[in-house]
Amino acid sequence: MSIIVLGTVALDTVKTPFGKRRHMLGGSAVHFAMAARLFADVNLVAIIGEDFPKKYINFLHQKGVILTSLIKSKGKTFKWEGQYQGDLNTALTLNTELGVLSIFRPVISPAQRKIKNIFLANVDPDIQMHLLRRLHSPQLVGLDSMNYWINHKRRALLRLLKKVDIYVANDQEARSLSGQANLVKAAEALRAQGPRMVLIKKGEHGVLFLSDKFIFSIPAYPTHKVVDPTGAGDTFAGGFMGFLARAKKINQAGIKKAIAYGTVAASFNVEGFGVQKTAQLGRKDLERRLAKFRKYVLF
Amino acid sequence: MSIIVLGTVALDTVKTPFGKRRHMLGGSAVHFAMAARLFADVNLVAIIGEDFPKKYINFLHQKGVILTSLIKSKGKTFKWEGQYQGDLNTALTLNTELGVLSIFRPVISPAQRKIKNIFLANVDPDIQMHLLRRLHSPQLVGLDSMNYWINHKRRALLRLLKKVDIYVANDQEARSLSGQANLVKAAEALRAQGPRMVLIKKGEHGVLFLSDKFIFSIPAYPTHKVVDPTGAGDTFAGGFMGFLARAKKINQAGIKKAIAYGTVAASFNVEGFGVQKTAQLGRKDLERRLAKFRKYVLF
Repeated sequence: MSIIVLGTVALDTVKTPFGKRRHMLGGSAVHFAMAARLFADVNLVAIIGEDFPKKYINFLHQKGVILTSLIKSKGKTFKWEGQYQGDLNTALTLNTELGVLSIFRPVISPAQRKIKNIFLANVDPDIQMHLLRRLHSPQLVGLDSMNYWINHKRRALLRLLKKVDIYVANDQEARSLSGQANLVKAAEALRAQGPRMVLIKKGEHGVLFLSDKFIFSIPAYPTHKVVDPTGAGDTFAGGFMGFLARAKKINQAGIKKAIAYGTVAASFNVEGFGVQKTAQLGRKDLERRLAKFRKYVLF
Repeated sequence: MSIIVLGTVALDTVKTPFGKRRHMLGGSAVHFAMAARLFADVNLVAIIGEDFPKKYINFLHQKGVILTSLIKSKGKTFKWEGQYQGDLNTALTLNTELGVLSIFRPVISPAQRKIKNIFLANVDPDIQMHLLRRLHSPQLVGLDSMNYWINHKRRALLRLLKKVDIYVANDQEARSLSGQANLVKAAEALRAQGPRMVLIKKGEHGVLFLSDKFIFSIPAYPTHKVVDPTGAGDTFAGGFMGFLARAKKINQAGIKKAIAYGTVAASFNVEGFGVQKTAQLGRKDLERRLAKFRKYVLF
């Protein structure tokens, strides 16, 4: 089973109470891939610059990520620098260097155009739409975005919402785009914009899901080892979409399970810097922690 | 089965985006009683002033709350005035008039001294300790407090923590008293202060429970009808302690179920002003919503 993820491949510099790391491998597409690869063949659609370390290419390749549509271009790789304090719930962006991201136009192969499962991770909505239009007959399209696009390309984002199946947003984004403070109302308002399913990520507080058929809410995996939450949302999306890509039929039980897998995948992500933990992850680790998670949340 | 709740009986004035109510029946002991009465005989230990409306006494009496130890004293009833905005997660206190609360010394009857289940809702820790010492052989003691006491009577509160079984705190209080930003760490640190069990209330994000034996985390009941969250935490505690008071043996499954009942009770509380909704509640309503809740959160 194959899945496409469109997003960023970045060099992240992150400071948390637990230390600082410079130019780690990061980006939405990479974090997504680390979880999705456990369920499906991940086709990464992204751009890097000439300064992108060869060792990171080798690493992604070793992890089975398909790099056919990872474009290398003149210029610098996208760089993000951020800091977390206190409860580590909110990232403070210190610096962003777009580099080659500003000229990114995704290109995919004829074979990739036939892939049914797509995740449009956070990039310019016009780029997301561009890729979506190149697909022959996508069956499950997930979309993520960020406050910057909600504020600066709202109309393009709303157009896109009509074309996707699942909109994934964090609580701030959901409130901002819907104009609703209550998250259930926010999810309902966003669903009215087009997507059949809305998934609101609440960081350490878990996830709220809403479709035309049901509501589902689960907490995050309770952990005291929060080292670096960068990419937790994308890791969640990777586990969630990866599980659904593998499912034969998408029903209520399957979606709930996919959300649980995404939650557990994200819990590994936060326990190390960058992809330190998720890179080492096997399906067995995921299953073992899912069993623990069940004990922690089911009654 | 009997339970004692020590706390406040108040006249609340509340403004939310859904309206304003003046001098409603409120207070921690009242909200607690509205849920606990569905499981046990609730003995209310509190103080009121001469201005306390007779209709509220009649109301509490009709609801089966035992008022033997509700002291009426010269002076004014405790009054709280607050406002909620936006997502209604945080109350802004506009005014507090302690009134007779400042001279409160709880008195209980010989029969009440034999009661095994006690909830010390938020009042001065010295008053909480005073009552606790008058009990013959309490078996399950729950404790709530607030930031004011954490800051102003920290030592008295820490002494009290060594004497209780369950400490119930909201996330801010848990972080403040433990000095830990991560909630799992905060719960562990608080447990190290004495109580076997720690319950952290996270408002719209649900509850985190930690004991020496297990961790448990569930989200709030997903609702878009949040009208007035005043007393939601006490309603939760009432459902939780009420259910445990009724249980023959307190084990893991029972505690989880008690937390679920508390969660569902609290979800009714937020749907109306004051005790508007919880006053009408029967066990059947609770059971029906619990069944829905299971669908919303189990996978």
